[in-house]
Order: sequence, then C-alpha cells, then structure tokens
Amino acid sequence: MNRIKRLAVLTSGGDAPGMNAAIRAIQLTAAACNVEVIGFKHGYNGLFEQEYKTLLGHHVQNIIQRGGTILKSARCPALQTPDGPAQAAATLHQLDIDALIVIGGDGSFRGALEIAKHYQGQIIGVPGTIDNDVDGTDNTIGYATAIDTALDAIDKIRDTADAFERIFLVELMGRHSGYITLSAGIAAGAEQIICPEFGSLSPDDLRSVITPIQHAQLLLGKSSYIIVVAENSYPGGTTALAEALSHAIGIECRACILGHIQRGGSPVGADRILGTKLGAFAVEQLLQGAHLQMAGEINGEAVLYPLSKTGERQKAIDPFLVRWQQQVGSY
Amino acid sequence: MNRIKRLAVLTSGGDAPGMNAAIRAIQLTAAACNVEVIGFKHGYNGLFEQEYKTLLGHHVQNIIQRGGTILKSARCPALQTPDGPAQAAATLHQLDIDALIVIGGDGSFRGALEIAKHYQGQIIGVPGTIDNDVDGTDNTIGYATAIDTALDAIDKIRDTADAFERIFLVELMGRHSGYITLSAGIAAGAEQIICPEFGSLSPDDLRSVITPIQHAQLLLGKSSYIIVVAENSYPGGTTALAEALSHAIGIECRACILGHIQRGGSPVGADRILGTKLGAFAVEQLLQGAHLQMAGEINGEAVLYPLSKTGERQKAIDPFLVRWQQQVGSY
Amino acid sequence: MNRIKRLAVLTSGGDAPGMNAAIRAIQLTAAACNVEVIGFKHGYNGLFEQEYKTLLGHHVQNIIQRGGTILKSARCPALQTPDGPAQAAATLHQLDIDALIVIGGDGSFRGALEIAKHYQGQIIGVPGTIDNDVDGTDNTIGYATAIDTALDAIDKIRDTADAFERIFLVELMGRHSGYITLSAGIAAGAEQIICPEFGSLSPDDLRSVITPIQHAQLLLGKSSYIIVVAENSYPGGTTALAEALSHAIGIECRACILGHIQRGGSPVGADRILGTKLGAFAVEQLLQGAHLQMAGEINGEAVLYPLSKTGERQKAIDPFLVRWQQQVGSY
Amino acid sequence: MNRIKRLAVLTSGGDAPGMNAAIRAIQLTAAACNVEVIGFKHGYNGLFEQEYKTLLGHHVQNIIQRGGTILKSARCPALQTPDGPAQAAATLHQLDIDALIVIGGDGSFRGALEIAKHYQGQIIGVPGTIDNDVDGTDNTIGYATAIDTALDAIDKIRDTADAFERIFLVELMGRHSGYITLSAGIAAGAEQIICPEFGSLSPDDLRSVITPIQHAQLLLGKSSYIIVVAENSYPGGTTALAEALSHAIGIECRACILGHIQRGGSPVGADRILGTKLGAFAVEQLLQGAHLQMAGEINGEAVLYPLSKTGERQKAIDPFLVRWQQQVGSY
Repeated sequence: MNRIKRLAVLTSGGDAPGMNAAIRAIQLTAAACNVEVIGFKHGYNGLFEQEYKTLLGHHVQNIIQRGGTILKSARCPALQTPDGPAQAAATLHQLDIDALIVIGGDGSFRGALEIAKHYQGQIIGVPGTIDNDVDGTDNTIGYATAIDTALDAIDKIRDTADAFERIFLVELMGRHSGYITLSAGIAAGAEQIICPEFGSLSPDDLRSVITPIQHAQLLLGKSSYIIVVAENSYPGGTTALAEALSHAIGIECRACILGHIQRGGSPVGADRILGTKLGAFAVEQLLQGAHLQMAGEINGEAVLYPLSKTGERQKAIDPFLVRWQQQVGSY
Repeated sequence: MNRIKRLAVLTSGGDAPGMNAAIRAIQLTAAACNVEVIGFKHGYNGLFEQEYKTLLGHHVQNIIQRGGTILKSARCPALQTPDGPAQAAATLHQLDIDALIVIGGDGSFRGALEIAKHYQGQIIGVPGTIDNDVDGTDNTIGYATAIDTALDAIDKIRDTADAFERIFLVELMGRHSGYITLSAGIAAGAEQIICPEFGSLSPDDLRSVITPIQHAQLLLGKSSYIIVVAENSYPGGTTALAEALSHAIGIECRACILGHIQRGGSPVGADRILGTKLGAFAVEQLLQGAHLQMAGEINGEAVLYPLSKTGERQKAIDPFLVRWQQQVGSY
Repeated sequence: MNRIKRLAVLTSGGDAPGMNAAIRAIQLTAAACNVEVIGFKHGYNGLFEQEYKTLLGHHVQNIIQRGGTILKSARCPALQTPDGPAQAAATLHQLDIDALIVIGGDGSFRGALEIAKHYQGQIIGVPGTIDNDVDGTDNTIGYATAIDTALDAIDKIRDTADAFERIFLVELMGRHSGYITLSAGIAAGAEQIICPEFGSLSPDDLRSVITPIQHAQLLLGKSSYIIVVAENSYPGGTTALAEALSHAIGIECRACILGHIQRGGSPVGADRILGTKLGAFAVEQLLQGAHLQMAGEINGEAVLYPLSKTGERQKAIDPFLVRWQQQVGSY
Repeated sequence: MNRIKRLAVLTSGGDAPGMNAAIRAIQLTAAACNVEVIGFKHGYNGLFEQEYKTLLGHHVQNIIQRGGTILKSARCPALQTPDGPAQAAATLHQLDIDALIVIGGDGSFRGALEIAKHYQGQIIGVPGTIDNDVDGTDNTIGYATAIDTALDAIDKIRDTADAFERIFLVELMGRHSGYITLSAGIAAGAEQIICPEFGSLSPDDLRSVITPIQHAQLLLGKSSYIIVVAENSYPGGTTALAEALSHAIGIECRACILGHIQRGGSPVGADRILGTKLGAFAVEQLLQGAHLQMAGEINGEAVLYPLSKTGERQKAIDPFLVRWQQQVGSY
C-alpha cells in the first residue's frame, strides 16, 4: 500500500551538525524501499527557485561526519508572502512529489504547516537545531554537538582563566532557551550559570551574580571563575554585563561571545545516531501514511508528534540538574 | 535524620571518562550537606592498604574535564580472598565511615555486595564503565566518550581508506557487549558491523561478511569499506579475521585495533553531566537511607536499582537501529 | 665549573600553551645536573609576595599536555614602581638564587632587564607567547597551538557559512602583529586576510575589502566567504567593520571574535617540543655562563640572542606566503 | 616565456594530510597564470587507466581542511613493468601535458624519474608523506599532523595508564625512520622512546629497556610508564616486545598499535601551510623551467632539490633532542 514514489527533503533554518546524517538516512532508507529522493537546496527557497536534484547513493557517501548541510539552508522571505505557501505547494505538485520532509526547527515547521494547506501530499518534520527548543523530542539533532563545541571552548578559557586567576563570562547560543547554556555550564563545571530559566537579570540589581563571586573569592580560594551566560540574558549583551560586573566588584571581568562556532563542526556520535534514526523513521512513517507529524525521540524511542504542537515548548529542563546547580554547583 | 557524617568513595575496574565528574559531584554535594568525604585510592586496594585521603574542595577543582580518575583504579586480588570482604569492611568501620560509594561496573558492584555482608554502613553504586553493560541505567558514565573517541579514529581511517579505496576492519572494545561497536559503527557510517548481538561468526562460514562486501563493490562503487568489529567476535581476533577475509576475497583487508585509546580522553558533555547527576544523586539517596542500590538514569530521570541485579544484562540494544543497520545501513 | 646551585623560573605575561613543557624541561634538566629549581607564582608578583615552591619531579609529571601554566601568570604593577626591580632582585639574593629563567614575551623580558641592573645572578629568557612577536627565534612557544585553535574555530564557521552561503569576519589575536592571522588565514583557505602587515584599513575607503568580495560573488560562485581579521585592524573593532561592510555591499556580514579561546588548550606537538627544547637549552646555557640572553630556535637550532634586542621586531612574515595570498589566495 | 599551457598533478604512495592543500594551491596558482590543471586519479594508475579530469576552482573549494586526497592514491604495479614508464609518458604526450607534478614520497619520485626518461615535458615533485623520510626538505607534508594525531592517542593512553598505574607500549608508524616516534615521544613526555636511530633492540638483551623502567619504579614513583616504539623496531613487533617485557619484569605491559589512524584526519595548520607553499612554489618553478626537482622547504624558505637525491636520507634527526631524551627525558 506504499503510494509514495518520490519524496523530497530540505533543510531549513539555522544549520545544525547531524543534518547530513539525517539526509543520508533518508536517502538510504528510501532507496531500500525503491522511493526516489529529491533534495531541494537553500531551504524553502529551493521550492521557489526550482533548485533541486535527485539524491543518489554517492551523494550521501561520507557525509555523515560533515558539519553543515549538503542541501544548504537559508531564510526564505518568499514563503512569508501571501502567495508563498501556495506557490511552494505548486512546485511540489508539478514535480510529482508525494511527500516532503523538512529538517529544521519549529519556525521551519510553521512554514511546512502553511504549505500543507495547499499541498495534497504528506509532510513530516525532523527536528534539527542546536537550540533543543522543539517540543515532542527529548533532543534535537545538533544539540549534543553544540554542547561539546561550547565545552571545548570553555575548557580552553578555563586554562587561561586559571593561569591568570581571572573572571570570564562566556556567552552561548540558544535563542530564548537555556538548554545549551545549562548543559555546557554544568559540564564545564562553571561557577555560575545565567539563563532564562533561572530568572531574568536586571542592570539595577546584580547582587544575584555578585554575591556568589565574592563568596568564592573569600571562602573557596578558586583560581578562576567562569560564568556561562545564555544569549539575550542581559540588556546590551554579555559584554555589557561584563563591564557592569567589573565596575561593581573592582575586578576585571572579560566577556567571550562564542557565536557561530557552535553551529559547525563534525557532529558527535549522539547527533549522527539521532539524525540517522529520525531520518530513517521519518521515511518509514511516511510510507505508513504519517502526515503533519514530527519524527522525534522520547525515552529512547522514535515517536510521532503533531507538527502543530512542536513550538509549544512545554519541554522542561532537567529539574534535578537545575536544582543541583543552584544549590550546590555554584558554590 | 541524616545520620551520615563521613562517606567514602572509590573508583574500581576499568577507568572511564566522567569518573572524575562523579567524584567532584560527590564531594560538592556532600560538602553542601556537611558530610566529610574520604577517597580511597586504587579501587578496593585502598581499603586494604589504608591508602586514602579526605577530599576537599580544591581536590576536585578543575577535574571535571580530565580523563582517568584522580583516585586511580586497579584490580584487587585481596578482595577475592576468603577473608577479603571482611577485612575491607573492617577498614570502613575503623575509619568511622558511614557509607561507601563505588564507581565502577558490575564486577565492582559484586565486590561491594560481598563487603556489604560484613559492613554496617550503607553502600551505593555509580555505574562507570565505557562498555555500557550495566543494567538499571540507560547509559553508563564513559560510554558516550568512548563512542566519540572510536568515531574520531574511524573518521581518520575513513580518510585514508577513501584515499586508497581500501577495506579496513576496526576493532572496538566492549568486553562481551556490542554497545560501543553498534553505536560507533552506525555513527561512522560503517559499511558493516560485527558484534555479539548480530550472531556469532565462524571461520568456516564467512559468507555473511563477504556477500555484502562483494555487493558493495559490484553495485555501489563505494570508494572505501569499513567493518567495525566488537572485540571477541572472531577466534584469533580481528587481525585473524582480516587475514581470512583478504584470502577469501583477494583484496587486502587491514585490521586496526583501537585498544586502550578508548578509555582515555577528556569526557564529552554527556558523560560529565551524567557523572555529575549520578554522583550528586548517590549522595542524596544515601542521606535518605538508600542501601545496596545503584544510582542510574532511566528515561532522563535519576533512579535507584538493586545493586544485585545490575549484572543481569537484560538491557537491549536499540532494536530500531539494529534492524535499520541490518536491513539498510550495510547496503 | 658549574657554580649554579639553585635557579628560579617564572611565567609572565599572557599564558601560552607549551609553557608547562618548558617548566618541565627546566626541572628535569636541572635535576639531572643536581641544580635545585624554585618556581615563583603569578609571574613577577611571586618575587614581591614571596610566593614560591621548590619544583620536584612529581610536580612536573603529566603537565606537558596541559594548557595554561602551573606557575600561573599575571601582570605585575609592583615591578613598574621605581623600587620594584631592586626589590625583586633582593628576593632573589635573599633566597640564594643563582639564576632566573623568565618564560614570557618581550614585555616580560624588559622587566627582567630592569631586575638585572640590581641582581648579581644570571638571567635568561624563554620566548612564550602566542603572538610570535619576539625577535631572535623563528617561533615562540604557544604560537603553533594558537594557529590550530583558530583554525579549528574557522573550520567550524566555514561549515555554517557554507550551509548558509554567508560572509563571516573572524577576528584573531596578535596584539600588533599579524602572525596568527596570516598563518591561520592561509591555513583556513580564507578568502581574505586583513592584518597590519597588509596595510591599514580606513573607514573612508573599504574598496580594498569590497572589491574582492564582489569579484568572488560574480565570477567564482563561492558558497561562503571568510575574512580573517587581526585584532586592532579597524577603528571600533571587527564588529564595526562587519557593520560597515554589510551596509556597503547590502549583504549581511557577521563578526566572530575568537578572543581568549586562543590562549588555552592542550599544546600541539610543535609547542611541546619547542618548550622542551628551549627549556632544556636555557638550563644548559645558564650552566655555561649565559646571561641576559634569550634561548631561541632559528633554522631548527637552539641559539642565544641578546635579551635587549628581542623587542626590535625585525622578524619578517614569510614573504612568499604574503605575496601568494595577495596575488592568488584571495581570488 | 611561459611555454606551459597544461600541467598534470597526481598523489602517489601513502596518503598524507595536507595533500589536498597542495592540490588546491596548484590549481589556484596555475589558474592565476592561465594554466590548465589535469588531475590524474589513483596515483600513477590514472596514467594507465586514462582516469583524469580538469581541476576547476570549485573542485578545490573547501578541501584544504580535508584529510586524504581528492585525487586518491594507490600503488601502481603497471609502472613497475618494463614498458610502464614509456606508457605513462605516452599518456602525458597524448594529452598535451607540458608538465607533471607528483605529490608523494621518495618511492613515488623514483617512479617519476623513470617516466622522465621517456617524457619530453617537465617533472617536479612535492614531498607528501607522514614519515618525513625525504631528503631536501625540513618537513614533508603530513608529518606535523601525524605527530599530533599520535600525540592525541598517547595522551588518551596516558589517562588510562595513569589511572591504572600501568606500563604501555605504543607503536607508531614511520617505515624505517624514527621521526614521528621521536617527535611524538618527546612531545608526549614518554618515559622511553625506541626507534631505529637509537640503536637496534635484540630479544636476547632487553636490559636497555628494562633498566630505566626499574629505575623509574624504584626512584621516581611514576604512576604510569609509556614507551613509544617505532614500527619495525623489534622482531615480531611491539606486541611481542610487550610480552617479552611483561615476562622479564613481572609487570603486565600492554601494547597499542596506532596504525592507519595516523594517516587520516584534518591537517594541522603547519601541513596546510606547507602544502599551500610547496604546491604554489612547484607551479611557479615549473613556469620558470624547473625540471627533475623537488619543491622543498629548508629553514623556512622554499627551495629546489634534485629529485634523484631525495631518497638519500642524510637528513639528521635533531641531535639536541636526541641527546636530551637519552640523557634526561627517559629519567
């Protein structure tokens, strides 16, 4: 009863390590089921520019270990126009594409839902973003690698902070969620973690940040002090926060903004495996009729989750670690 | 009702990256509860040689990122003697130690159970081994790092295999389980995976290995071919298997035995976080009376599991990935 | 005729990977010659605060692979005071120290020359700085590692730049020299390199930067464009440059400031070997009477160079690579 | 007076990280001079199988950071036949190729010299091999990366050796030269180094190996002991040596054979820069008439060296480091 002859895949939004593993698994799984795979380039733009190619086995050889995405990604203003979704759907119809797989975050999935209103085929999402801010899956593809990339940088900063007995503030990505910051902060043994989930920070009251620093200096004799900060945690950014702190405590605090380094790099094992699993699962579920679902993993098992709910973000950060970090880790 | 004044910790069995994160979390959590922590050195030998020291805050500073274990590890023949367990318990009593935390694998936990027969205090285990062959926890501390270390090596071999269009067999650790091999194999995009869970391999019948190689050569035009092999998968080892294959197919197959590289290295984020979580949880549970339990993590939550059952190994390898690799990944 | 019984070592200025290798080699070499080694902590501050310890074999075990410096580093305002150098010399005399080894850059060497005016013992310098801006040695300790650290970051940015087809400006360290920038830029295959040696950049005339970008877009179809920028190359910094470029060409240009990450990390082989060689050579030369010299390496051979000339900076950046990058590499 | 319209390049012998940087620089430099570049695949085999393609700009984009060689490498039995060299030359003539660049080791250069007897065009060699056993250049392309790859593995083994207080023997590549072994051994702080340059090792007399081990145990209290061994240093290999040592001293000694991991991986900065420099220099020199030369680097400067002398191997290993390691480093 497999009515799918040809499916399409695209990567959208910020690229994430492991997207290539998902593309590879989609191609291999589809090929094993005699389904052709079309890859659109530059995210949804490929649908408007008619930029695509048939993905063959050799296109996905030796890509599992590569960062970025072989299909490229981009924002797509064309999809935001009133006629955009219908136009995108028209391309899919015109190319006889029976199903579309969108690898990206919840913003990309919203775009898919718009297209679905005009598209006769099936649509499934695969969660790929370093921010881990997609509901319906424990982890998104790219998140584990981003933690280890951040960690590698913080470890290096620790070396020099320790040699100089200095205070460093390291800003990590995460848009409006603190997943990367909390995980990397705990894993780095950061003395302090500042992220949205821990409450907002006001320039008028920096005591919550200053008190533990002074405590550490007086009582603990720490030779370095690292504060990991989620982006968007302080008006003016982490550089402004570092200046405010320097001024308040009379010790030079340096800011380091990790930035886009966190998106790149060869994916770690966890992301290659998750990408493989969700890519394969997405194809299998399409063949069984899934539509408007996201292929996620919860408690180790591949599951479907309504695409329309992936942005609701009820997903909680591990409460055990949050509590431990606040009560123990920062001291 | 916290009756614990002093607890002890030791690392036993093969060392695993992340053990230091667990030691650090144990010290920090205990200190926050005004509990003293004694560290025994060289595994159980510390109990016999009276080699120990009080762990203070500065002993665990900047160790979360270090491989190995600051407490050292070792086999302990003394514990295997008839009087061994009683002697070990005597040391604990003599030093007024109210509870013992053993970080190691199920062999180490068996030793703990023997000591428990003579010891009045509480005992809790923390699963630390790269092999992931401990029941009662989804992952053991060190497993994630071992996968990424193996992966890094296989990626390098892929580079040279690809340049030379060669066949390589890479042997990974895992004692009698295929966790590392399956995970690293899938994550590396290995063309073939040989591990205990996929059935045994006989020198008399190598067809199951040879057929997919020939298939790949004829049909797929792959420019390299990597077989990931769990240790103990073939009589005489992976070098013997490579020779047998070379002879059978007339193409040189090279063996590469990764060996102890897999034990070392700075732990990845997942192992630092798991070590932190389970170390902290172990202390908290001891304070609440836990005894003869292992602190594990299942479905993201810290849980207790009877120490006596950790070696039963009902833990299944992800059936989705096993099936996918056998049906799709190898082709 | 070895009159040295006790020598002292300190690390000063910005820390650099490989300083620990030098400290280790100094201790091992001195011990083999029955010379005691005192390590002062926090750079020259250790001389004022009397913070020091005798370095024994076990202090330098397993440090060759560590970033930072076990002796710590710091700026030393006390040395800048009129009486500072005499006071520092007094500490050396008081502790019966026959010779002092200063590991650092040319600023640290200037401090050593001031102390020498009041000190009866011998002084030798070992060039340790990531900036490679010390004359009298082909490379300074830490420079090779800084290049590879920068490279690792730029490779990651390339992944995401390539996925998004974006323009990135990556700012590297180097104070007032372009060594790291030129080397990392060439090694990264950067499309453009902006460093002091290539002439200054004025906000009023960005044509030298813009023209090659437009050329690359029109003619070469490059999918990403990376400009590596030395710090202090543009008024307002690299973020300001990125904004000016974005405005001028109408394409978003993103800035990434690598910062202190470049100082940390396990030293690469070249720095461990250079640190070992220069540390050992410094001790040997002290024993043969060297004074007011720097231990450097030129054309593969350990050599002495007058400490007073190390800041003259006649050292030229490889003219072949400069020419090649300007004529070929940027196009 | 540039009579070269079309040149060819091939990579031959064992692949080495940085070969892609050389290929890229050759293409870019040639293109800037309006010279077409043909890439032959699989080493000299490409000449026999007529496997080649014109290398364009986009073929060499984003390859500078990749291990292996995009042109593939292979042994070429056809070239060893009596008619082989003439046949190879015939292909070059037939394709109107005015010059050939061979990237490889001295074995590959011998092949080039044979072809030169029948070929009217120019031939130049570029030294690419991890072994650094080519005369006429201080370093070969790939050597620096191989050291760091070995180092990364030895550091990991150090972690586990230290945790277990064990003796490890780590075998490194190098065919018949000890460059990698000596450099990686010193950089790793290995307690002992066994390589051809330090004299041969006989199963009948292991005292030179055993004495320092016993010295370290008795006097130094070292918690781990690592012996780095060049391949081909002991009859039966390093595994046999480990067994002989275990038997002789009564302590378990484990062998670890690094093998082909050392060939792969993203090239370090030094190899990317050397590859770029020598590739560019080779093209420039061809255009100026160079023939039967190798493009090498001596004392930081690109130089030509007669291709016929590259295998003479007078190149000495740094005598300072050899002496230091023997007198100091091992103790």
